Amino acid sequence: MADDFKVTPWEVTGDIDYEVLMQRFGTTPIDDALMKRIAKYGEIHPMLKRGIFYTHRDFGKLLDDYDKGNKFFLYTGRGPSGHTHLGHIMPWIFNKWVQDVFEADMLFQMTDDEKFLFKDLTLKDTRALAYENALDFVALGFDPEKTKIILDTENIKELYPIALKVAKKVTFSTAKAVFGFDNSTNIGSIFFTTIQAAPAFLPSERAGKQIPCLIPCGIDQDPHFRVARDAAPGLNYPKPTMLYCKMFPGLGGGDKMSSSDEMATIYTTDSPKNVKKKVGRAFTGGCVSVEEQRVKGGNPEVCAVFKYNFYLFEKDDKKVNDLVDKCKKGEILCGECKQMLTEKINVFLEEHQAKREEAKEVVDSMTFDGFKW
Amino acid sequence: MADDFKVTPWEVTGDIDYEVLMQRFGTTPIDDALMKRIAKYGEIHPMLKRGIFYTHRDFGKLLDDYDKGNKFFLYTGRGPSGHTHLGHIMPWIFNKWVQDVFEADMLFQMTDDEKFLFKDLTLKDTRALAYENALDFVALGFDPEKTKIILDTENIKELYPIALKVAKKVTFSTAKAVFGFDNSTNIGSIFFTTIQAAPAFLPSERAGKQIPCLIPCGIDQDPHFRVARDAAPGLNYPKPTMLYCKMFPGLGGGDKMSSSDEMATIYTTDSPKNVKKKVGRAFTGGCVSVEEQRVKGGNPEVCAVFKYNFYLFEKDDKKVNDLVDKCKKGEILCGECKQMLTEKINVFLEEHQAKREEAKEVVDSMTFDGFKW
Repeated sequence: MADDFKVTPWEVTGDIDYEVLMQRFGTTPIDDALMKRIAKYGEIHPMLKRGIFYTHRDFGKLLDDYDKGNKFFLYTGRGPSGHTHLGHIMPWIFNKWVQDVFEADMLFQMTDDEKFLFKDLTLKDTRALAYENALDFVALGFDPEKTKIILDTENIKELYPIALKVAKKVTFSTAKAVFGFDNSTNIGSIFFTTIQAAPAFLPSERAGKQIPCLIPCGIDQDPHFRVARDAAPGLNYPKPTMLYCKMFPGLGGGDKMSSSDEMATIYTTDSPKNVKKKVGRAFTGGCVSVEEQRVKGGNPEVCAVFKYNFYLFEKDDKKVNDLVDKCKKGEILCGECKQMLTEKINVFLEEHQAKREEAKEVVDSMTFDGFKW
Repeated sequence: MADDFKVTPWEVTGDIDYEVLMQRFGTTPIDDALMKRIAKYGEIHPMLKRGIFYTHRDFGKLLDDYDKGNKFFLYTGRGPSGHTHLGHIMPWIFNKWVQDVFEADMLFQMTDDEKFLFKDLTLKDTRALAYENALDFVALGFDPEKTKIILDTENIKELYPIALKVAKKVTFSTAKAVFGFDNSTNIGSIFFTTIQAAPAFLPSERAGKQIPCLIPCGIDQDPHFRVARDAAPGLNYPKPTMLYCKMFPGLGGGDKMSSSDEMATIYTTDSPKNVKKKVGRAFTGGCVSVEEQRVKGGNPEVCAVFKYNFYLFEKDDKKVNDLVDKCKKGEILCGECKQMLTEKINVFLEEHQAKREEAKEVVDSMTFDGFKW
């Protein structure tokens, strides 16, 4: 497959070849041995089994530490540039599983500063969006006793000294090479990566000793954490351990669900009617006519509807395999498949939206250092 | 005079030609008309009369505003990289005069973050030095009701959102051109100027309207405030008004007193004995022998001892002129001059050190937003 795709924290273009990307970034595949090892702690999450979380940095080492009684904390985050869609919550669902299995404390960083710097948004905008996004995060059921939400502009006093320490170790050369910055990049954007590094080191800084950190997130964030990992040893912080997932696909067939295409994006607050409309327009692997599809079958590999089942909405492996089989044999048509997915998404969203309402009662108690929204 | 000198906030090298520097930076001389205008508000400070504060940006405009009842606040600061010496307090003494004459509120920023980023110091070091420096600042008698001390890492929550707004307006290109950064500069140093800009805009941000700001400081800080002034209009902040002074000379004859030469630097905590020793070794405009000097006279223009009288320790213009006269005629020798200066400095330091002790009782009540040291 071609190598002409680009993945940075701010831009995903071209058709991503995830194997090539892994080699490019220098991360390690999650192989059978590691998978077997993970299975000892709890039932393997479908996102691992299906290769959605597919590559890592030092995960085996983290488990070695864990086995010795050295507990890690979880850290992931969200850049609040828009309303929450399914692509955002996918890795959060995985984080929830890790929290449950390993009884891990968790930091969730909302980078309102980043989105102000990189997008045409005010700080008021990004703060309001952060609140909306936080409701979705909380709705997923993270343990309120073990989970704290960081809002960068609110918690900057704790983050800033750590960010400074990281910043002192990172030259513009490095930032340029890692993120593709140039002379026209604003100096806030150049500095920002240090703020994203900070939560990974915050518990170590507070404790005055190394507390291991696991960051499950999209692989597009690797440039940030390469920088953070390079800086860590010189600061006597532990290198954060990474577990990376693929991007959640867009309904239009693209590699990454993006708010830039509203109709190919399912938001957590969408109505059942909207979901039906959006899924109805989804890109599928079907043929141009029913007759042709009955004979030739469809292609689930390119089908957004199938991917949604595979990534999030069909947890039963047997049912996933059946779906592939039936599709390829022409036994199931796109309309039927879309209808089933619509129902699954709407069932999920109905429950999620109820929990999202409840989250409004809890979200204040989960802020880091007790800030008020 | 040669143009081969360099003045940035972090480096002063070569023989500074202050006229050339003014042209290079594009600031305006303080001319007779402006001086006459200032005289209407109070007795002209010797540092203005003697051209130590010698150039400005928009000072006339600030006075226009003031005359219309639009009060300004003062802002100056200190990078806590070492103990306070006479070169540091010189512009603070001037600030105190401005505060008194214009009854101005004042922000004093201590950039512990900057000195961490630019020097081989820890954040603990720069914080401890900031406290020491703050005592000297407070000892000068600033009105505790009108004066607040900012410590960047303590007050970052107020500074950061403003810094982000500035940062979004400043490209790496600009930072490179203004400060001479290159690819090897760390990304914290690149970002830092936005933190130094923030206090200039902080009262405007808090008030939700434009509050004029006057910054009397060393001309080496102009690069920072050029950036701040360029960013201001787009953020609906007022451009800060600048009053710039020349660098306080070193005892060794250099253009800037610097802690890198301990023996040519008089610290505010020096003992009378130490002062005597340091002044005794000062570079003068004297001749090699007493006999020669009696005949040829000395050269006050290059003499550090004379400069100390001129910059800080002889407020009486007549006495300054007498000193020049007598020196040139060989009527006064260097030893005598050094002895007189030593006495003046020690009288000043005795009083200052007593006030510095008293400052320990007040300094906590003068912190911005009430932080504890």
